[in-house]
Amino acid sequence: MLIIGEKLNSARKQVREMIENRDVKSIQDLAKKQVEGGAEMLDVNSSAASGDKEENMEWLVKTVQEAVDVPLCIDSPNAEEIEKGLEVYNWDKGKALINSITGEKEKIDRLLPAIVKYKCAVVALVMDERGIPDNSKTRVEIAKKLIKVLTDVGVPLKDIFIDPLVVPIGTSDKNGLVTMETIKSVKEAHPEVKIVTGLSNISYGLPERKLINQVFMILTMGCGMDAAIIDSTDKRMMAITKTAMTLLGEDNFCSGYIQAYREGKLTFEIK
Amino acid sequence: MLIIGEKLNSARKQVREMIENRDVKSIQDLAKKQVEGGAEMLDVNSSAASGDKEENMEWLVKTVQEAVDVPLCIDSPNAEEIEKGLEVYNWDKGKALINSITGEKEKIDRLLPAIVKYKCAVVALVMDERGIPDNSKTRVEIAKKLIKVLTDVGVPLKDIFIDPLVVPIGTSDKNGLVTMETIKSVKEAHPEVKIVTGLSNISYGLPERKLINQVFMILTMGCGMDAAIIDSTDKRMMAITKTAMTLLGEDNFCSGYIQAYREGKLTFEIK
Repeated sequence: MLIIGEKLNSARKQVREMIENRDVKSIQDLAKKQVEGGAEMLDVNSSAASGDKEENMEWLVKTVQEAVDVPLCIDSPNAEEIEKGLEVYNWDKGKALINSITGEKEKIDRLLPAIVKYKCAVVALVMDERGIPDNSKTRVEIAKKLIKVLTDVGVPLKDIFIDPLVVPIGTSDKNGLVTMETIKSVKEAHPEVKIVTGLSNISYGLPERKLINQVFMILTMGCGMDAAIIDSTDKRMMAITKTAMTLLGEDNFCSGYIQAYREGKLTFEIK
Repeated sequence: MLIIGEKLNSARKQVREMIENRDVKSIQDLAKKQVEGGAEMLDVNSSAASGDKEENMEWLVKTVQEAVDVPLCIDSPNAEEIEKGLEVYNWDKGKALINSITGEKEKIDRLLPAIVKYKCAVVALVMDERGIPDNSKTRVEIAKKLIKVLTDVGVPLKDIFIDPLVVPIGTSDKNGLVTMETIKSVKEAHPEVKIVTGLSNISYGLPERKLINQVFMILTMGCGMDAAIIDSTDKRMMAITKTAMTLLGEDNFCSGYIQAYREGKLTFEIK
Protein backbone atom coordinates (compact mmCIF):
# COMPACT_ATOMS: atom_id res chain seq x y z
CA MET A 1 0.00 0.00 0.00
CA LEU A 2 1.49 3.29 -1.17
CA ILE A 3 0.47 6.24 0.99
CA ILE A 4 0.44 9.56 -0.88
CA GLY A 5 0.20 12.66 1.34
CA GLU A 6 -2.71 14.85 0.23
CA LYS A 7 -2.06 18.10 2.06
CA LEU A 8 0.16 20.12 -0.35
CA ASN A 9 -2.87 21.03 -2.44
CA SER A 10 -3.74 24.60 -3.38
CA ALA A 11 -7.44 23.79 -3.08
CA ARG A 12 -6.69 24.27 0.63
CA LYS A 13 -6.62 28.00 1.45
CA GLN A 14 -3.55 27.85 3.71
CA VAL A 15 -1.52 26.04 1.07
CA ARG A 16 -2.68 28.43 -1.66
CA GLU A 17 -1.41 31.33 0.43
CA MET A 18 1.87 29.57 1.22
CA ILE A 19 2.48 29.21 -2.53
CA GLU A 20 1.45 32.77 -3.34
CA ASN A 21 3.70 34.10 -0.55
CA ARG A 22 6.57 31.77 -1.49
CA ASP A 23 6.56 30.62 2.14
CA VAL A 24 9.40 28.06 1.95
CA LYS A 25 9.36 27.17 5.64
CA SER A 26 5.64 26.39 5.88
CA ILE A 27 5.64 24.31 2.69
CA GLN A 28 8.70 22.36 3.77
CA ASP A 29 7.32 21.82 7.28
CA LEU A 30 4.09 20.46 5.82
CA ALA A 31 6.07 18.19 3.50
CA LYS A 32 8.20 16.85 6.37
CA LYS A 33 5.21 16.38 8.68
CA GLN A 34 3.44 14.23 6.09
CA VAL A 35 6.53 12.07 5.51
CA GLU A 36 7.01 11.69 9.26
CA GLY A 37 3.35 10.57 9.47
CA GLY A 38 4.04 7.81 6.97
CA ALA A 39 3.60 9.28 3.47
CA GLU A 40 5.83 7.53 0.93
CA MET A 41 4.99 10.04 -1.82
CA LEU A 42 3.59 13.59 -1.70
CA ASP A 43 0.92 15.04 -3.95
CA VAL A 44 1.77 18.62 -5.03
CA ASN A 45 -0.86 20.86 -6.60
CA SER A 46 -0.42 24.59 -7.15
CA SER A 47 -3.08 25.25 -9.75
CA ALA A 48 -5.47 27.28 -7.58
CA ALA A 49 -2.77 29.79 -6.59
CA SER A 50 -2.72 33.16 -8.35
CA GLY A 51 0.26 34.28 -10.44
CA ASP A 52 2.18 32.46 -13.15
CA LYS A 53 0.94 28.85 -13.13
CA GLU A 54 4.14 27.28 -14.38
CA GLU A 55 6.35 29.30 -12.05
CA ASN A 56 4.16 28.25 -9.12
CA MET A 57 4.55 24.56 -9.95
CA GLU A 58 8.30 24.94 -10.52
CA TRP A 59 8.70 26.65 -7.14
CA LEU A 60 6.53 24.09 -5.35
CA VAL A 61 8.31 21.03 -6.78
CA LYS A 62 11.77 22.46 -6.07
CA THR A 63 10.83 23.64 -2.58
CA VAL A 64 9.34 20.29 -1.57
CA GLN A 65 12.18 18.26 -3.07
CA GLU A 66 14.74 20.30 -1.13
CA ALA A 67 13.04 19.20 2.10
CA VAL A 68 12.13 15.54 1.63
CA ASP A 69 13.42 12.50 -0.25
CA VAL A 70 10.13 10.84 -1.27
CA PRO A 71 8.93 11.01 -4.90
CA LEU A 72 6.15 13.42 -5.87
CA CYS A 73 2.77 13.13 -7.48
CA ILE A 74 2.58 16.17 -9.79
CA ASP A 75 -1.07 17.09 -9.70
CA SER A 76 -2.79 19.58 -11.98
CA PRO A 77 -5.69 19.85 -14.42
CA ASN A 78 -3.32 21.77 -16.73
CA ALA A 79 -0.86 19.96 -18.99
CA GLU A 80 1.55 22.93 -18.97
CA GLU A 81 1.93 22.81 -15.18
CA ILE A 82 2.49 19.06 -15.22
CA GLU A 83 5.15 19.43 -17.92
CA LYS A 84 6.87 22.17 -15.94
CA GLY A 85 6.82 19.98 -12.84
CA LEU A 86 8.41 17.11 -14.77
CA GLU A 87 11.01 19.43 -16.28
CA VAL A 88 12.32 20.66 -12.93
CA TYR A 89 11.79 17.37 -11.04
CA ASN A 90 14.81 15.82 -9.29
CA TRP A 91 14.73 12.23 -10.56
CA ASP A 92 17.26 11.09 -7.94
CA LYS A 93 14.32 11.09 -5.49
CA GLY A 94 12.39 8.38 -7.34
CA LYS A 95 10.01 8.23 -10.28
CA ALA A 96 7.46 11.04 -10.56
CA LEU A 97 3.76 10.20 -10.87
CA ILE A 98 1.64 12.62 -12.87
CA ASN A 99 -1.96 13.27 -11.86
CA SER A 100 -3.69 13.02 -14.27
CA ILE A 101 -4.91 12.13 -17.71
CA THR A 102 -8.52 11.19 -18.44
CA GLY A 103 -10.30 9.45 -21.30
CA GLU A 104 -10.69 12.85 -23.02
CA LYS A 105 -8.84 12.56 -26.32
CA GLU A 106 -7.51 16.11 -26.29
CA LYS A 107 -6.06 15.64 -22.80
CA ILE A 108 -4.42 12.35 -23.73
CA ASP A 109 -2.86 13.75 -26.90
CA ARG A 110 -1.60 16.81 -25.05
CA LEU A 111 0.27 14.81 -22.35
CA LEU A 112 1.41 11.65 -24.14
CA PRO A 113 4.66 13.15 -25.48
CA ALA A 114 5.74 14.21 -21.98
CA ILE A 115 4.83 10.78 -20.56
CA VAL A 116 7.00 9.13 -23.24
CA LYS A 117 9.84 11.64 -22.80
CA TYR A 118 10.09 11.49 -19.00
CA LYS A 119 9.05 7.83 -18.50
CA CYS A 120 7.00 8.92 -15.51
CA ALA A 121 4.18 6.95 -13.88
CA VAL A 122 0.65 8.14 -14.74
CA VAL A 123 -2.66 8.48 -12.92
CA ALA A 124 -5.53 7.91 -15.36
CA LEU A 125 -9.04 8.95 -14.31
CA VAL A 126 -11.97 6.83 -15.53
CA MET A 127 -13.91 9.75 -16.99
CA ASP A 128 -14.11 11.20 -20.49
CA GLU A 129 -15.93 13.81 -22.59
CA ARG A 130 -19.23 12.54 -21.12
CA GLY A 131 -18.16 13.29 -17.53
CA ILE A 132 -17.95 10.81 -14.65
CA PRO A 133 -19.98 7.67 -15.41
CA ASP A 134 -22.50 6.78 -12.69
CA ASN A 135 -21.83 3.04 -13.13
CA SER A 136 -18.78 0.82 -12.82
CA LYS A 137 -19.25 -0.83 -16.25
CA THR A 138 -18.56 2.40 -18.15
CA ARG A 139 -15.75 3.36 -15.76
CA VAL A 140 -14.07 0.00 -16.42
CA GLU A 141 -14.45 0.48 -20.20
CA ILE A 142 -12.70 3.84 -19.95
CA ALA A 143 -9.98 2.27 -17.78
CA LYS A 144 -9.36 -0.40 -20.42
CA LYS A 145 -9.15 2.24 -23.16
CA LEU A 146 -6.67 4.29 -21.12
CA ILE A 147 -4.54 1.24 -20.33
CA LYS A 148 -4.36 0.46 -24.07
CA VAL A 149 -3.42 4.03 -25.00
CA LEU A 150 -0.64 4.09 -22.40
CA THR A 151 0.78 0.63 -23.07
CA ASP A 152 0.73 1.38 -26.83
CA VAL A 153 3.30 4.14 -26.25
CA GLY A 154 5.40 1.92 -23.99
CA VAL A 155 4.23 2.74 -20.46
CA PRO A 156 4.66 -0.47 -18.43
CA LEU A 157 1.51 -1.73 -16.64
CA LYS A 158 3.12 -1.22 -13.24
CA ASP A 159 3.44 2.53 -13.95
CA ILE A 160 -0.25 2.94 -14.76
CA PHE A 161 -2.38 4.05 -11.81
CA ILE A 162 -6.10 3.89 -12.56
CA ASP A 163 -8.21 6.25 -10.44
CA PRO A 164 -11.68 4.64 -10.10
CA LEU A 165 -13.07 8.03 -8.96
CA VAL A 166 -14.92 8.77 -5.77
CA VAL A 167 -18.23 10.67 -5.81
CA PRO A 168 -19.85 11.75 -2.51
CA ILE A 169 -22.03 9.06 -0.90
CA GLY A 170 -24.35 11.91 0.11
CA THR A 171 -25.48 12.38 -3.51
CA SER A 172 -26.31 8.70 -4.13
CA ASP A 173 -26.12 5.79 -1.71
CA LYS A 174 -24.61 3.56 -4.42
CA ASN A 175 -21.57 5.79 -5.00
CA GLY A 176 -19.32 3.82 -2.66
CA LEU A 177 -20.25 0.56 -4.35
CA VAL A 178 -19.57 1.96 -7.84
CA THR A 179 -16.01 2.86 -6.84
CA MET A 180 -15.49 -0.53 -5.15
CA GLU A 181 -16.82 -2.47 -8.14
CA THR A 182 -14.61 -0.48 -10.49
CA ILE A 183 -11.52 -1.30 -8.41
CA LYS A 184 -12.34 -5.02 -8.34
CA SER A 185 -13.07 -5.23 -12.08
CA VAL A 186 -9.93 -3.35 -13.15
CA LYS A 187 -7.71 -5.45 -10.84
CA GLU A 188 -9.31 -8.65 -12.10
CA ALA A 189 -8.66 -7.73 -15.74
CA HIS A 190 -5.20 -6.22 -15.15
CA PRO A 191 -3.61 -7.41 -11.88
CA GLU A 192 -0.36 -5.54 -12.65
CA VAL A 193 -2.08 -2.18 -13.09
CA LYS A 194 -2.24 -0.12 -9.90
CA ILE A 195 -5.29 1.52 -8.41
CA VAL A 196 -5.03 4.90 -6.70
CA THR A 197 -7.61 7.33 -5.50
CA GLY A 198 -8.25 10.33 -3.32
CA LEU A 199 -10.77 9.07 -0.82
CA SER A 200 -11.99 12.08 1.05
CA ASN A 201 -14.51 13.12 -1.61
CA ILE A 202 -16.69 10.22 -0.44
CA SER A 203 -17.69 12.05 2.76
CA TYR A 204 -18.36 15.49 1.25
CA GLY A 205 -21.41 17.11 2.82
CA LEU A 206 -21.76 14.62 5.69
CA PRO A 207 -20.80 14.94 9.37
CA GLU A 208 -17.86 13.05 10.93
CA ARG A 209 -16.02 12.96 7.62
CA LYS A 210 -12.90 11.30 9.05
CA LEU A 211 -14.93 8.31 10.22
CA ILE A 212 -16.37 7.82 6.71
CA ASN A 213 -12.96 8.30 5.06
CA GLN A 214 -11.34 5.75 7.38
CA VAL A 215 -14.02 3.10 6.82
CA PHE A 216 -13.95 3.70 3.05
CA MET A 217 -10.16 3.36 3.09
CA ILE A 218 -10.50 -0.14 4.55
CA LEU A 219 -13.31 -1.15 2.18
CA THR A 220 -11.33 -0.04 -0.90
CA MET A 221 -8.18 -1.74 0.39
CA GLY A 222 -10.23 -4.93 0.64
CA CYS A 223 -11.12 -4.51 -3.06
CA GLY A 224 -7.45 -4.37 -4.06
CA MET A 225 -6.54 -0.68 -3.95
CA ASP A 226 -2.75 -0.17 -4.20
CA ALA A 227 -2.32 3.49 -3.29
CA ALA A 228 -4.34 6.25 -1.68
CA ILE A 229 -4.04 10.01 -1.51
CA ILE A 230 -4.87 10.65 2.14
CA ASP A 231 -3.99 12.70 5.20
CA SER A 232 -0.91 10.85 6.47
CA THR A 233 -0.83 13.11 9.54
CA ASP A 234 -4.17 11.58 10.69
CA LYS A 235 -2.92 9.02 13.20
CA ARG A 236 -6.02 6.91 13.27
CA MET A 237 -6.16 6.75 9.46
CA MET A 238 -2.55 5.55 9.41
CA ALA A 239 -3.18 3.03 12.21
CA ILE A 240 -6.16 1.45 10.46
CA THR A 241 -4.27 1.38 7.16
CA LYS A 242 -1.41 -0.49 8.84
CA THR A 243 -3.90 -2.85 10.50
CA ALA A 244 -5.73 -3.50 7.21
CA MET A 245 -2.41 -4.33 5.51
CA THR A 246 -1.72 -6.87 8.25
CA LEU A 247 -5.17 -8.45 7.87
CA LEU A 248 -4.82 -8.52 4.06
CA GLY A 249 -1.70 -10.68 4.32
CA GLU A 250 0.79 -7.94 3.43
CA ASP A 251 2.68 -8.02 6.74
CA ASN A 252 4.90 -11.06 7.32
CA PHE A 253 4.48 -12.43 10.84
CA CYS A 254 2.53 -9.24 11.74
CA SER A 255 5.94 -7.64 12.23
CA GLY A 256 4.90 -4.25 10.80
CA TYR A 257 1.87 -4.21 13.09
CA ILE A 258 3.89 -5.08 16.18
CA GLN A 259 6.55 -2.49 15.31
CA ALA A 260 3.88 0.19 14.84
CA TYR A 261 2.46 -0.78 18.24
CA ARG A 262 5.88 -0.49 19.91
CA GLU A 263 6.30 2.96 18.35
CA GLY A 264 2.98 4.03 19.91
CA LYS A 265 1.30 4.45 16.51
CA LEU A 266 -1.70 2.23 17.21
CA THR A 267 -2.81 3.48 20.60
CA PHE A 268 -5.54 6.06 21.09
CA GLU A 269 -7.33 7.29 24.11
CA ILE A 270 -11.01 7.46 23.38
CA LYS A 271 -13.57 8.98 25.67
CA MET B 1 -26.24 -6.38 8.87
CA LEU B 2 -27.41 -8.38 11.88
CA ILE B 3 -25.52 -7.52 15.07
CA ILE B 4 -25.38 -10.38 17.58
CA GLY B 5 -24.20 -9.40 21.06
CA GLU B 6 -21.29 -11.61 22.15
CA LYS B 7 -21.04 -10.90 25.86
CA LEU B 8 -23.36 -13.48 27.48
CA ASN B 9 -20.75 -16.18 27.04
CA SER B 10 -19.56 -18.39 29.90
CA ALA B 11 -16.05 -18.39 28.43
CA ARG B 12 -15.90 -15.00 30.17
CA LYS B 13 -15.21 -15.48 33.89
CA GLN B 14 -17.72 -12.87 35.10
CA VAL B 15 -20.52 -14.41 33.06
CA ARG B 16 -19.60 -17.92 34.19
CA GLU B 17 -19.93 -16.76 37.79
CA MET B 18 -23.20 -14.97 37.11
CA ILE B 19 -24.64 -18.22 35.76
CA GLU B 20 -23.26 -20.34 38.61
CA ASN B 21 -24.64 -17.86 41.17
CA ARG B 22 -27.99 -17.53 39.35
CA ASP B 23 -27.39 -13.76 39.36
CA VAL B 24 -30.56 -12.65 37.56
CA LYS B 25 -29.88 -8.92 37.83
CA SER B 26 -26.36 -8.99 36.37
CA ILE B 27 -27.36 -11.26 33.48
CA GLN B 28 -30.40 -9.14 32.66
CA ASP B 29 -28.41 -5.90 32.91
CA LEU B 30 -25.80 -7.28 30.51
CA ALA B 31 -28.55 -8.37 28.13
CA LYS B 32 -30.21 -4.94 28.22
CA LYS B 33 -26.91 -3.08 27.82
CA GLN B 34 -26.09 -5.03 24.67
CA VAL B 35 -29.51 -4.38 23.15
CA GLU B 36 -29.24 -0.69 24.02
CA GLY B 37 -25.86 -0.67 22.27
CA GLY B 38 -27.46 -1.95 19.08
CA ALA B 39 -27.55 -5.77 19.30
CA GLU B 40 -30.50 -7.22 17.38
CA MET B 41 -29.89 -10.74 18.71
CA LEU B 42 -27.97 -12.04 21.74
CA ASP B 43 -25.64 -15.01 21.84
CA VAL B 44 -26.14 -17.09 25.02
CA ASN B 45 -23.58 -19.69 26.06
CA SER B 46 -23.56 -21.40 29.47
CA SER B 47 -21.45 -24.44 28.71
CA ALA B 48 -18.35 -23.46 30.74
CA ALA B 49 -20.35 -22.98 33.95
CA SER B 50 -20.23 -25.75 36.56
CA GLY B 51 -23.35 -27.62 37.60
CA ASP B 52 -26.09 -29.26 35.51
CA LYS B 53 -25.46 -28.19 31.89
CA GLU B 54 -29.06 -28.33 30.76
CA GLU B 55 -30.38 -26.54 33.83
CA ASN B 56 -27.81 -23.79 33.26
CA MET B 57 -28.95 -23.24 29.66
CA GLU B 58 -32.62 -23.35 30.67
CA TRP B 59 -32.02 -20.73 33.35
CA LEU B 60 -29.95 -18.51 31.04
CA VAL B 61 -32.45 -18.55 28.15
CA LYS B 62 -35.42 -17.85 30.44
CA THR B 63 -33.58 -15.15 32.39
CA VAL B 64 -32.46 -13.31 29.25
CA GLN B 65 -35.83 -13.59 27.52
CA GLU B 66 -37.58 -12.10 30.56
CA ALA B 67 -35.42 -8.98 30.14
CA VAL B 68 -35.21 -8.31 26.39
CA ASP B 69 -37.31 -8.83 23.27
CA VAL B 70 -34.62 -9.73 20.72
CA PRO B 71 -34.20 -13.34 19.53
CA LEU B 72 -31.36 -15.47 20.88
CA CYS B 73 -28.47 -17.37 19.39
CA ILE B 74 -28.32 -20.56 21.49
CA ASP B 75 -24.62 -21.34 21.59
CA SER B 76 -23.06 -24.55 22.85
CA PRO B 77 -20.74 -27.34 21.73
CA ASN B 78 -23.22 -29.79 23.32
CA ALA B 79 -26.35 -30.89 21.50
CA GLU B 80 -28.21 -31.53 24.78
CA GLU B 81 -27.79 -27.92 25.89
CA ILE B 82 -28.94 -26.61 22.52
CA GLU B 83 -32.01 -28.83 22.63
CA LYS B 84 -32.83 -27.68 26.15
CA GLY B 85 -32.45 -24.06 25.02
CA LEU B 86 -34.85 -24.65 22.12
CA GLU B 87 -37.31 -26.44 24.38
CA VAL B 88 -37.68 -23.54 26.81
CA TYR B 89 -37.28 -20.75 24.21
CA ASN B 90 -40.06 -18.16 23.95
CA TRP B 91 -40.81 -18.13 20.21
CA ASP B 92 -42.86 -14.93 20.47
CA LYS B 93 -39.52 -13.09 20.59
CA GLY B 94 -38.46 -14.21 17.10
CA LYS B 95 -36.80 -17.23 15.56
CA ALA B 96 -33.97 -18.81 17.54
CA LEU B 97 -30.60 -19.38 15.87
CA ILE B 98 -28.61 -22.38 17.07
CA ASN B 99 -24.82 -22.20 17.20
CA SER B 100 -23.69 -24.62 15.85
CA ILE B 101 -23.39 -27.69 13.73
CA THR B 102 -20.18 -28.59 11.85
CA GLY B 103 -19.35 -30.94 9.00
CA GLU B 104 -18.80 -33.75 11.55
CA LYS B 105 -21.34 -36.44 10.67
CA GLU B 106 -22.05 -37.41 14.26
CA LYS B 107 -22.79 -33.78 15.19
CA ILE B 108 -25.10 -33.30 12.22
CA ASP B 109 -27.06 -36.50 12.90
CA ARG B 110 -27.41 -35.61 16.57
CA LEU B 111 -28.95 -32.15 15.94
CA LEU B 112 -30.92 -32.56 12.70
CA PRO B 113 -34.12 -33.84 14.40
CA ALA B 114 -34.24 -30.77 16.67
CA ILE B 115 -33.61 -28.44 13.71
CA VAL B 116 -36.51 -30.04 11.84
CA LYS B 117 -38.77 -30.05 14.93
CA TYR B 118 -38.23 -26.44 15.99
CA LYS B 119 -37.68 -24.89 12.51
CA CYS B 120 -34.89 -22.79 13.98
CA ALA B 121 -32.14 -21.03 12.04
CA VAL B 122 -28.73 -22.75 12.12
CA VAL B 123 -25.10 -21.68 12.27
CA ALA B 124 -22.93 -24.19 10.38
CA LEU B 125 -19.17 -24.09 10.91
CA VAL B 126 -16.93 -24.94 7.94
CA MET B 127 -14.90 -27.58 9.80
CA ASP B 128 -15.23 -31.34 10.05
CA GLU B 129 -13.52 -34.45 11.45
CA ARG B 130 -10.21 -33.16 10.01
CA GLY B 131 -10.38 -29.92 12.03
CA ILE B 132 -10.35 -26.37 10.64
CA PRO B 133 -9.03 -26.31 7.06
CA ASP B 134 -6.16 -23.87 6.51
CA ASN B 135 -7.47 -22.91 3.06
CA SER B 136 -10.69 -21.43 1.72
CA LYS B 137 -11.19 -24.13 -0.94
CA THR B 138 -11.79 -26.86 1.64
CA ARG B 139 -13.85 -24.55 3.85
CA VAL B 140 -16.13 -23.78 0.89
CA GLU B 141 -16.47 -27.51 0.11
CA ILE B 142 -17.60 -28.15 3.68
CA ALA B 143 -20.01 -25.19 3.46
CA LYS B 144 -21.57 -26.66 0.32
CA LYS B 145 -21.95 -30.05 1.97
CA LEU B 146 -23.60 -28.48 5.03
CA ILE B 147 -25.97 -26.41 2.90
CA LYS B 148 -27.03 -29.59 1.08
CA VAL B 149 -27.60 -31.53 4.32
CA LEU B 150 -29.72 -28.70 5.76
CA THR B 151 -31.77 -27.96 2.64
CA ASP B 152 -32.41 -31.70 2.19
CA VAL B 153 -34.33 -31.71 5.48
CA GLY B 154 -36.23 -28.55 4.54
CA VAL B 155 -34.23 -25.72 6.13
CA PRO B 156 -34.70 -22.68 3.85
CA LEU B 157 -31.48 -21.07 2.54
CA LYS B 158 -32.24 -17.83 4.39
CA ASP B 159 -32.14 -19.71 7.73
CA ILE B 160 -28.66 -21.15 7.08
CA PHE B 161 -25.82 -19.10 8.55
CA ILE B 162 -22.41 -20.31 7.37
CA ASP B 163 -19.57 -19.46 9.74
CA PRO B 164 -16.39 -19.12 7.62
CA LEU B 165 -14.30 -19.41 10.82
CA VAL B 166 -11.71 -16.98 12.08
CA VAL B 167 -8.25 -18.16 13.14
CA PRO B 168 -5.82 -15.69 14.77
CA ILE B 169 -3.78 -13.62 12.30
CA GLY B 170 -0.89 -14.00 14.77
CA THR B 171 -0.50 -17.68 13.87
CA SER B 172 -0.38 -17.15 10.07
CA ASP B 173 -0.49 -13.89 8.16
CA LYS B 174 -2.87 -15.43 5.59
CA ASN B 175 -5.59 -16.26 8.13
CA GLY B 176 -7.56 -13.07 7.50
CA LEU B 177 -7.52 -13.68 3.75
CA VAL B 178 -8.69 -17.29 4.14
CA THR B 179 -11.79 -16.12 6.04
CA MET B 180 -12.45 -13.34 3.52
CA GLU B 181 -12.09 -15.66 0.51
CA THR B 182 -14.42 -18.19 2.13
CA ILE B 183 -17.09 -15.52 2.64
CA LYS B 184 -16.85 -14.32 -0.97
CA SER B 185 -16.98 -17.84 -2.44
CA VAL B 186 -19.94 -18.99 -0.35
CA LYS B 187 -21.92 -15.80 -1.13
CA GLU B 188 -21.12 -16.14 -4.83
CA ALA B 189 -22.38 -19.73 -4.92
CA HIS B 190 -25.37 -19.17 -2.61
CA PRO B 191 -26.41 -15.49 -2.40
CA GLU B 192 -29.41 -16.37 -0.19
CA VAL B 193 -27.34 -18.16 2.44
CA LYS B 194 -26.19 -15.90 5.27
CA ILE B 195 -22.66 -15.52 6.60
CA VAL B 196 -22.04 -15.03 10.30
CA THR B 197 -18.93 -15.14 12.38
CA GLY B 198 -17.40 -14.23 15.69
CA LEU B 199 -14.63 -11.84 14.73
CA SER B 200 -12.60 -11.31 17.84
CA ASN B 201 -10.58 -14.51 17.47
CA ILE B 202 -8.66 -12.79 14.65
CA SER B 203 -6.75 -10.57 17.12
CA TYR B 204 -5.90 -13.23 19.71
CA GLY B 205 -2.37 -12.77 21.06
CA LEU B 206 -1.80 -9.33 19.53
CA PRO B 207 -1.91 -5.88 21.15
CA GLU B 208 -4.69 -3.33 20.50
CA ARG B 209 -7.19 -6.10 19.80
CA LYS B 210 -10.15 -3.75 19.37
CA LEU B 211 -8.40 -1.96 16.50
CA ILE B 212 -7.82 -5.26 14.68
CA ASN B 213 -11.39 -6.45 15.35
CA GLN B 214 -12.85 -3.19 14.01
CA VAL B 215 -10.79 -3.23 10.82
CA PHE B 216 -11.57 -6.92 10.26
CA MET B 217 -15.27 -6.21 10.73
CA ILE B 218 -15.15 -3.71 7.85
CA LEU B 219 -13.10 -6.00 5.61
CA THR B 220 -15.48 -8.93 6.12
CA MET B 221 -18.53 -6.68 5.61
CA GLY B 222 -16.96 -5.68 2.29
CA CYS B 223 -16.83 -9.40 1.37
CA GLY B 224 -20.56 -9.83 1.97
CA MET B 225 -20.87 -10.83 5.62
CA ASP B 226 -24.49 -10.65 6.84
CA ALA B 227 -24.17 -10.99 10.61
CA ALA B 228 -21.45 -10.73 13.22
CA ILE B 229 -21.11 -11.79 16.84
CA ILE B 230 -19.45 -8.73 18.36
CA ASP B 231 -19.34 -6.45 21.37
CA SER B 232 -22.33 -4.20 20.71
CA THR B 233 -21.40 -2.08 23.74
CA ASP B 234 -18.18 -1.01 21.95
CA LYS B 235 -19.27 2.38 20.61
CA ARG B 236 -16.57 2.69 17.99
CA MET B 237 -17.27 -0.81 16.66
CA MET B 238 -20.93 0.07 16.32
CA ALA B 239 -20.11 3.44 14.69
CA ILE B 240 -17.85 1.91 12.05
CA THR B 241 -20.39 -0.85 11.39
CA LYS B 242 -23.08 1.76 10.77
CA THR B 243 -20.69 3.73 8.55
CA ALA B 244 -19.71 0.62 6.55
CA MET B 245 -23.40 -0.20 5.97
CA THR B 246 -23.86 3.32 4.59
CA LEU B 247 -20.85 2.98 2.28
CA LEU B 248 -22.01 -0.48 1.13
CA GLY B 249 -25.30 0.96 -0.13
CA GLU B 250 -27.47 -0.42 2.67
CA ASP B 251 -28.61 2.96 4.00
CA ASN B 252 -31.09 4.87 1.82
CA PHE B 253 -30.14 8.55 1.51
CA CYS B 254 -27.60 8.00 4.34
CA SER B 255 -30.54 8.43 6.71
CA GLY B 256 -29.32 5.81 9.21
CA TYR B 257 -25.91 7.46 9.29
CA ILE B 258 -27.35 10.93 9.85
CA GLN B 259 -29.69 9.65 12.55
CA ALA B 260 -26.80 7.91 14.33
CA TYR B 261 -24.85 11.18 14.16
CA ARG B 262 -27.77 13.14 15.65
CA GLU B 263 -27.97 10.61 18.48
CA GLY B 264 -24.29 11.20 19.24
CA LYS B 265 -23.32 7.65 18.25
CA LEU B 266 -20.61 8.59 15.75
CA THR B 267 -18.63 11.16 17.70
CA PHE B 268 -15.49 10.36 19.66
CA GLU B 269 -12.93 12.51 21.31
CA ILE B 270 -9.50 11.24 20.47
CA LYS B 271 -6.29 12.47 22.02
